[in-house]
Amino acid sequence: MVLRLAVIGFGNVGQEFARLLLSKQQWLWRSRNLVVEVAALATRTRGSLLSEKGLDLERALREIRSRGTLVCYGPEVAALPPLEIIEQCNADVMIELTPLNIESGQPALSHVQAALEIGMNVVTANKGPVAHAYDSLKALADSRGVHFRFEGTVMDGAPVFSLVEKTLPGCEVEAVAGVLNSTCNFILTEMGRGRSMAEALAEAQRRGVAESDPSLDIDGWDAASKITALANVLLGARSTPQRVERKGIRDITSEAIKEALAEGKTIKLVARAEWAEGIVKTSVQPELIGPDSPFWSVDGTSSALTLRTDLIGELTIIETNPTLAQTAYAIFSDVLMIAEAVRKGTT
Amino acid sequence: MVLRLAVIGFGNVGQEFARLLLSKQQWLWRSRNLVVEVAALATRTRGSLLSEKGLDLERALREIRSRGTLVCYGPEVAALPPLEIIEQCNADVMIELTPLNIESGQPALSHVQAALEIGMNVVTANKGPVAHAYDSLKALADSRGVHFRFEGTVMDGAPVFSLVEKTLPGCEVEAVAGVLNSTCNFILTEMGRGRSMAEALAEAQRRGVAESDPSLDIDGWDAASKITALANVLLGARSTPQRVERKGIRDITSEAIKEALAEGKTIKLVARAEWAEGIVKTSVQPELIGPDSPFWSVDGTSSALTLRTDLIGELTIIETNPTLAQTAYAIFSDVLMIAEAVRKGTT
Repeated sequence: MVLRLAVIGFGNVGQEFARLLLSKQQWLWRSRNLVVEVAALATRTRGSLLSEKGLDLERALREIRSRGTLVCYGPEVAALPPLEIIEQCNADVMIELTPLNIESGQPALSHVQAALEIGMNVVTANKGPVAHAYDSLKALADSRGVHFRFEGTVMDGAPVFSLVEKTLPGCEVEAVAGVLNSTCNFILTEMGRGRSMAEALAEAQRRGVAESDPSLDIDGWDAASKITALANVLLGARSTPQRVERKGIRDITSEAIKEALAEGKTIKLVARAEWAEGIVKTSVQPELIGPDSPFWSVDGTSSALTLRTDLIGELTIIETNPTLAQTAYAIFSDVLMIAEAVRKGTT
Repeated sequence: MVLRLAVIGFGNVGQEFARLLLSKQQWLWRSRNLVVEVAALATRTRGSLLSEKGLDLERALREIRSRGTLVCYGPEVAALPPLEIIEQCNADVMIELTPLNIESGQPALSHVQAALEIGMNVVTANKGPVAHAYDSLKALADSRGVHFRFEGTVMDGAPVFSLVEKTLPGCEVEAVAGVLNSTCNFILTEMGRGRSMAEALAEAQRRGVAESDPSLDIDGWDAASKITALANVLLGARSTPQRVERKGIRDITSEAIKEALAEGKTIKLVARAEWAEGIVKTSVQPELIGPDSPFWSVDGTSSALTLRTDLIGELTIIETNPTLAQTAYAIFSDVLMIAEAVRKGTT
């Protein structure tokens, strides 16, 4: 079986995914009887590629690394915007990895919508579509008989959505709570070790954990998008990040951290979603965490999520020190699940 | 679709499963188009039932509760040993829930073997078969085209085996480590609060956490069985509980606990399995745990497992304060997965 991908966005995650795909080609063929080809690679400012036969990923990676652009790749270069690439590439699965505009969910939202419209399966590591329009996108996917998967949107490679979908049949998720933003968690951890927020942020930026403009993390927008994605998918909310009761870590002082430590506690940015009075309430705010909490050991760039369910009570999943490789794996696992479902003819 | 079960063993777990099944009948029909009937109920000393039409579970529960036996249930009473019940019941799935002999894995092992031999799917919450003969039982199940599932054997209802099987495609598990025995963890937690081991054990027995003969827990046999099950299934070991390097908590003194606390640590019984020098090494022993470990917050009857994998690094799953309901759910989820697979004609 041949599965053709259109990869939209070729930044760090896209490149890591390409490397993972290259390293797993033989395994895919041997153990899954599967050939995964990349039919298209689209970027906003660094060129796009389109090929009937499947692109040479090693060459694409080399071009991006050495020249910073794909425009010298060869005759497969296509001067088309991503939306037209999606429409023309004839792929089986569109992989959406563009940078996110958290307010609107664009351009990912349009890309996902366009792919689903023409009956293409979609995998995204981009929170936008799930946080802004999960309900309508899922309905669209169902109406076209295709798959819409997004494991990489929350907690990188740790299975969160798959965990509920595949391993907890019949279980209702009543509430979720998580430490979901690695930049904030890294900063708070470093502050607990005596650094100032400015020092901790600089260190996070030096390590590539934080963006040069860290406000989306610091002000809780990233966590708000993630908890909205979780609320929409697992709790049936129809919400957006703007509706999250949101307080970031900007105002957390070294004194507050010291006071918490003196009480034997620590401060973490916790995102919550819960059914209450007929609606799903979502919030992001700094909380005092004690040593009896499963979040206690979740330091640095690690993340964690607790699910409260009707049939098995509380379950927590912790991802320790993830890297880009974990996000790439999330996409890879979604692609494998789609391949398996397509092969079995199930949705 | 009708799925007929043979429930072998009707102790606490079996009864809890029966209650869960009763409470979910309508849901099963509405959301899965599934009728789950119990065709047989077998116990070693409290009578057995066999029915073509499906037993009245409420009546069976009432009989066991009020009389302590099933022998007054009615014409469905069958004076047959469990093995013959399995052979005659014509069920689709055998649910093995008998008490475990950890040395031999019996009688569960024979029950599972007999059911698989005649092409019956098997679900077990009994560690024996998986810890003693996973490899041959899995091969037997495959040769008969049936399913062998055992989610309830480790960490009650928390998905452990399903997590790897269903949500981590292509990921190799390289090592596992867990806090897997609730009796030991409860005792060590209580000792950390100043109780003696004798007091802590008595409290565990009073709460029904520990058996009247707690030696299988205290001496690490239960944890050894669980780590063997994990090693056999997730790491491809072909081991038995006897081969685990095993040290229980019998010799842990209140002084040792105090010393650990003085260092800012705690003692937990940790089970480990890991590939090393071409074999899978398994061990169970008390370890010093610091606040940076995901096991730090795992107190009382809670349990936890960390998987180390090639593609997504370390992932930890924590189950908080499980009850019998969680084990019942594990069986229920295995039955649902079998029903779905049978319906789709996949193995």
